[in-house]
Formats: sequence, C-alpha cells, structure tokens
Amino acid sequence: MKTMNVSIIGFGVVGQGVARAIQRSNDYFKKNGVDLKVVAIVDLWGSLIDESGLDLKNVLIQAKQKKLKGENRNSLEVICEVDHDCVVEVTPSNIKTGGVGLEHMIKALENKRHLVTSNKGPLALEYKKLVDLAKKNDVEFKYEATVGGAMPIINFAKNCLAGNEILSIRGIFNGTCNYILTRMAEDGLPYDNVITEAQELGLAETDPTYDVDGIDTAAKLVILANSIFDMDAVYNDASVTGIRDITVESLKLAHGEGYVVKLIGEVKEGVLEVAPRLVPKGHPLALGGTLNAASIQTDLAGEITVTGKGAGSIEAASAIISDLAEISKKTDL
Amino acid sequence: MKTMNVSIIGFGVVGQGVARAIQRSNDYFKKNGVDLKVVAIVDLWGSLIDESGLDLKNVLIQAKQKKLKGENRNSLEVICEVDHDCVVEVTPSNIKTGGVGLEHMIKALENKRHLVTSNKGPLALEYKKLVDLAKKNDVEFKYEATVGGAMPIINFAKNCLAGNEILSIRGIFNGTCNYILTRMAEDGLPYDNVITEAQELGLAETDPTYDVDGIDTAAKLVILANSIFDMDAVYNDASVTGIRDITVESLKLAHGEGYVVKLIGEVKEGVLEVAPRLVPKGHPLALGGTLNAASIQTDLAGEITVTGKGAGSIEAASAIISDLAEISKKTDL
Repeated sequence: MKTMNVSIIGFGVVGQGVARAIQRSNDYFKKNGVDLKVVAIVDLWGSLIDESGLDLKNVLIQAKQKKLKGENRNSLEVICEVDHDCVVEVTPSNIKTGGVGLEHMIKALENKRHLVTSNKGPLALEYKKLVDLAKKNDVEFKYEATVGGAMPIINFAKNCLAGNEILSIRGIFNGTCNYILTRMAEDGLPYDNVITEAQELGLAETDPTYDVDGIDTAAKLVILANSIFDMDAVYNDASVTGIRDITVESLKLAHGEGYVVKLIGEVKEGVLEVAPRLVPKGHPLALGGTLNAASIQTDLAGEITVTGKGAGSIEAASAIISDLAEISKKTDL
Repeated sequence: MKTMNVSIIGFGVVGQGVARAIQRSNDYFKKNGVDLKVVAIVDLWGSLIDESGLDLKNVLIQAKQKKLKGENRNSLEVICEVDHDCVVEVTPSNIKTGGVGLEHMIKALENKRHLVTSNKGPLALEYKKLVDLAKKNDVEFKYEATVGGAMPIINFAKNCLAGNEILSIRGIFNGTCNYILTRMAEDGLPYDNVITEAQELGLAETDPTYDVDGIDTAAKLVILANSIFDMDAVYNDASVTGIRDITVESLKLAHGEGYVVKLIGEVKEGVLEVAPRLVPKGHPLALGGTLNAASIQTDLAGEITVTGKGAGSIEAASAIISDLAEISKKTDL
C-alpha cells in the first residue's frame, strides 16, 4: 500500500465536495493499493494540518456549522512547508490576473508537488508556464475539473480516441447559459425574468456577467485548445459574444425551423470562438437544462459527443478524484 | 520502431474499412514508434499473405473491382500458421451459434495472437471463455467495435471514470431503430413505410428482424454487462422487446407530453432489459437520426453520456484502430 498525502487549498463548495468525495472513494483507492490522506486544509479561517491524516468527517461537520478554526500558517506556507505529495487547488477563479490561485499553483509545482485544480483563471492566462513548470519539476499537473465539471472531456479526448486525429471541438460549456436559453425557448419567458429566476435558484450569480457574457465559456475553451491541440492560447485570443441580446422571438423563429439556440464554444483550425449558434433538434448538442456537452470532430470516428453535469460541488469533485486516481496510478509517490 | 503484424479475417465492408483506416493512421502509429503491417487478409475468395506487409492500396482497388483472388489456405490455417501478432476478426456475426467467428477467436487466442474484433455474436455467447483464454495465453482481447461503432463506450467506462462507481448503463445501441423511430415521430409515417424506406437507403436489412426485434441491442448489452460490470451474462439472460408494435399515434401522444420514444437497452443491478422507453426531450438520449448513445450512471459524476455514429465501415474501423493502438502501447510485441 502506497500513501498519497494531499492538501486542499480553498475549502468552499468545491473543496468540501472534494473532502466528501475522498471519503466516499476511500474503498476505490484502497482497492488500488493507495492510502489517500488529506494532511492539510486551508481557507480564510486558517489552516488545519495533521500529517497522519485529518478526520474529514469531523472537519465537514464543523464546516457545515461554520465553526472551523485553524492555525495561522497561510496557504503558501502550507504548500511549501507541509510534507505532502499533491496539492488540490480549489480557490475561487480570477480570470483577469489569475489571483492567488496562480501563486498557489506556481508554488506547488516549484515544490515538486503534483497539482490538481478546478480553477480556470490561472490556466486561461498562464497555461504554458504552468505546464512547463510541471515538466521541469517532473510532477503531474491535472485540471479535468476546469472544463465541464463531471464531464471528463480532457481525459476522453486524450485517452479514448487513439488512432484518430482530432479536427475540432465545439460544445456547451456553461450550464447557466444553457438553463437560461432552454427556459426562454420552452416557456417563452424573456431574458430578464429568467435571469432573476436563475439567481433565485442559485444557478446564476448576483452579477451574471461571467456566465452570460461568455467569459466562463471562453476560459474553458482556451484550456481545451491548449491541452488538446497543444496550442499556446490565452483568454484574449478568443472572440466572445454572450447571450444577453437573445430574444424570445428569435428562439421561437429557430424552433419553427427545427433548431434550438445554444451558446457554443468552438476551437477549430487555431481559431477560438464563443457565440450563440443554431443547433438542429435531435443533435447531441441540442441539450436542455443545465447540462454541458462537448462534440469532438475526428477523422475516422466522425463526431463524438460527451455530455454531463457541468456544475455542482460533487461533480467538480468527481473530476478531481479521477485526476487524483490517475496520478496515484502513474507515479511512485 | 517495433513492428506489429496483423491479419484481417473477413474482408467485407468492415474489413475493407479497417484496411483503409490502417492506411490513414499510418502516421499516427509511426509517430508512436509502431510499424503496423497487414500480413494476411482472408475471405471467401481465398487468402492474401505477405509477411513483409501487403500493399493495401492495391488490395483495396482490387476489392472494389471484385477481382481479389488468393491462395487456398483458409482462415483457420492463416490464423495458426502465418507468423503474426494480432488477429482482426471482422466476419459477419452469428448470434445463435457464434459461427466461424467463434472458431477464429478461439484459434487466435490459443495461438497467442492478440485479438481485436467487431463481431458481437461470439461475445454475446461465450464472453467468459474468450476472456479466460486471453488471460491464460497472456494476450490482449479487445472489442470496442462490437458496441456502438465509433462511440468508444467500453474504453470510456473503463478509463475515464476513475474513482467513480458505475451504477448502471442505458442507451441507444441500434442506429436502424433510432432512424425508424425518429422518422415515424417527426414525419408521422407508419412503421411499414419507414422500414421500406430504410431498406432502400441501406439502413435496414431485407430481413430487419435482427435490428427491429432488439436482438442486436441485446447482444451489445450483454457485452457491456460482461465487460463493464464483470458479469457472466449470455444472450438469453436479456429480456427483449422490439419496436414492431410502436404506432405513430403513441409517438404523437408522447410528443405532446414532451417525450420521444427510443429503443433503450439497460443493464442495472444485474438485470438486462431491451424495450421501447419514453425519453424526455432535451435529455442526452433524445437523439435523432442513426446516432447511438450510452448513458452511464455513476455515484460521483452523476449521469455521463457518450454519443457517436453507431454504424458505418470507417466508424467501426475507427474503434478497431483505437484497440490496435492500445495494444501496441501496452505490449512489447
């Protein structure tokens, strides 16, 4: 049995989801000869550290009661000083500067920790730098959770299409936009009403800019372009149009012609574009609700689509767990 | 550069597709350090054998002109006597006895050849025996092409969901039935008209029993159950209802309530069932045309769906190529 010690940096919805998922997948890891232990958790309230493994059940109860308190070592100190194998970076994303998440990632890789993250911002800005750092320090850098939550698109494109050349990728990468467009189309409600509803349901932020203006979709598209097509794209390379100007009338018109309208991100021949597009009904991208989907065009297999839940803490955590599982298989630890 | 010598047993639509796909993926294999050569092709007209590698371009031209002639060694002799690494078994499927395909597979494995196949029948009848034979002889046995053509569901379930427990699988595994049901629903045409049309388009056989009575779907379901849930199911374990009795009226009724009707195969808690089912519009399984799709229910990631072209010679060939690529990576040859 080999031991894999991880830290969780950021203990909000996703971080707590990761802790719960690690509890639930304990048997899976044990069966594969890995003793997976969380030795440090850090958030604004401080840091919990136990090199023999934290009691996650207890930690999660206290988190629910908002009673967590820790010692004063900050996230960068924990990443550098606590002896562990892998950093799980799940702090909130900053798409403009990369924020503290970018610092965490750089420090983790420099200290030869494997790195798993759900944090898009740093990857949409400094993908190449991070990948090079990981290579230089001979550690794994995995980020399935940054694109499409539980939908394992990156692993799928890299591992399930051997022998195929991938020509392009297009998809629905934002569940909030999908929800808004579905509700507008199916129930004839105008944008303003639906966005208020989505906010009440917790599906949209108070400031929905990040979702509805296509920023989130573009960040994910940049990550896909870099990781699957080995590009060196950054956020500003994408041409981006959001969904604010979509009217109920245009959706009705599309419906009458056999189409639905979806916010589609596409990377093709080096060009990154996010815009509302017509999708024929019955097509794998004509999806309702909050689902995400990615269609991959290949030379032999034609178009293959993967669909899954794009949001939700346990779904993002699932992607992180699958990255941890891959790392535990590949490395000696 | 390692060499991987393969035989193609059966040179109909799929076999010729494999030959074309091997030509097209030559660069991919070379880049991965593999020189992939076809050293034998067998069909009813005889066998072509060249241990330094057949000229596929020439062979395909002759096949098109129906001018292929070979020497008299039959398929079993070729499998046993010609020195090669991997047998690609792509003869027509026999779901009742396994037919000559089953003999080919047994001989291939007994002679320590790796085995890749698109032939469902033998696997739906003798899966366990074949897997055990492969293990005993320490060779790879891969069959992605048996289920869903280009849709890489088996590799996906095995390789992309690490850390997840798979609870159940359900899907559309027969493109002909999907075409028939889509056309009946969208255009209000009765079953008899659509089946005639499908036959004219080459989408249905003269005797459509195999497709429309759910036999093909059930065979695929058995293979999924065995390979993903490690069951020991055979064809007769599945409860099977086809689509012959579906009326245009029932499809209209479903449409009015927000549903489409699809022939769904499902394996759940050890039970295998094929039957027409209601699927909500906007759901990933509410697919039109001849597409196939498989939804996998998992404990962490929720429901994840993979969609792709289920039929077509180049699509089946794509699945075979990806199996060959996996084998060339895993083994020393």
